[in-house]
Amino acid sequence: MKKSIGIREMIFPDPVMIVGTYGEDGRANAAAFAWGGTASADPAALSVAVRPSRYTYENIMLRKAFTVSLPSPEYVDECDYFGIVSGRDVDKFEKTGLTPVKGEFVDAPYVGEFPVNIECEVSHVLDLGAHTLFIGEVRDVKVDEGLAGDIKGLWQSSRILTYDSHALSYLLPGEEIAKAFSCGLRFK
Amino acid sequence: MKKSIGIREMIFPDPVMIVGTYGEDGRANAAAFAWGGTASADPAALSVAVRPSRYTYENIMLRKAFTVSLPSPEYVDECDYFGIVSGRDVDKFEKTGLTPVKGEFVDAPYVGEFPVNIECEVSHVLDLGAHTLFIGEVRDVKVDEGLAGDIKGLWQSSRILTYDSHALSYLLPGEEIAKAFSCGLRFK
Repeated sequence: MKKSIGIREMIFPDPVMIVGTYGEDGRANAAAFAWGGTASADPAALSVAVRPSRYTYENIMLRKAFTVSLPSPEYVDECDYFGIVSGRDVDKFEKTGLTPVKGEFVDAPYVGEFPVNIECEVSHVLDLGAHTLFIGEVRDVKVDEGLAGDIKGLWQSSRILTYDSHALSYLLPGEEIAKAFSCGLRFK
Repeated sequence: MKKSIGIREMIFPDPVMIVGTYGEDGRANAAAFAWGGTASADPAALSVAVRPSRYTYENIMLRKAFTVSLPSPEYVDECDYFGIVSGRDVDKFEKTGLTPVKGEFVDAPYVGEFPVNIECEVSHVLDLGAHTLFIGEVRDVKVDEGLAGDIKGLWQSSRILTYDSHALSYLLPGEEIAKAFSCGLRFK
């Protein structure tokens, strides 16, 4: 039997996206977002949902660029901090000791220590009410050198974090139980 | 050291979203999509990226409605099958024996056996090139009755699948390593 639990956001899993931007004063900022995902293959694009009250919103609107850095487990405390305080009040890179690296292709900084960094230019801005959905066209992806040789195994080897927005938990990637375009063939 | 791996889609993790639609002939269809995510809190909305060549695209454009059903591990083969064949050629519900249930609030069917079902009405259609991003405003969420009492624990107890689009693997939810709005407080 099914039970209605009403109208609510309800996708699992969410990514842990650390969005890097520059402020009007040129100061690097990083903030945590869990809502969004891949948006298109060509041009490669992703989405991230940002409340207009956020400092990151202001910064993205100003420079039409941002980065997304994806964290490995050793940085979970830093990620969480990036989601707790506002870059209006504090220099989060300074506080955590992490390194803002100027994007090579876009006017935004990424987190140098995180294993995956995606440089994006804003292609669309979609006002959806509580959140604005930014579509970022990917201009480059950088990964730790040791990971570049095995893109297929990258998520498991770097153990990129997952977010559970109902439990408010950070999760490791789980066990692989099946291969796509394979296990379903039995119904053909 | 960082190494550029070029322009590509690069978000991890992706959800396993089984999108339910009706065809022009009224036949229920289900298809697998991994690109998208939560898009806004109010009104609650999600995104799903669909290639215009897909049967699902045609169906969504026709009725401006779809559902997203999220699968537990025992249905991984069915999910995979939903992504392998086209509803133009075959009745996927019939082949898998799963049950299409007419949405209560939208003109689209959901997968009765899956633990979470989200009914959506299309609010925005964004042409991004290879993919069109549909924004679905949530009209209702239904879950298996046994799960409704503990929304916070729902993802872990129902073990909703995660997709790794580089390894082409289905994953279980991983271990919780930290709580949000908590572990980062040490930097304050």
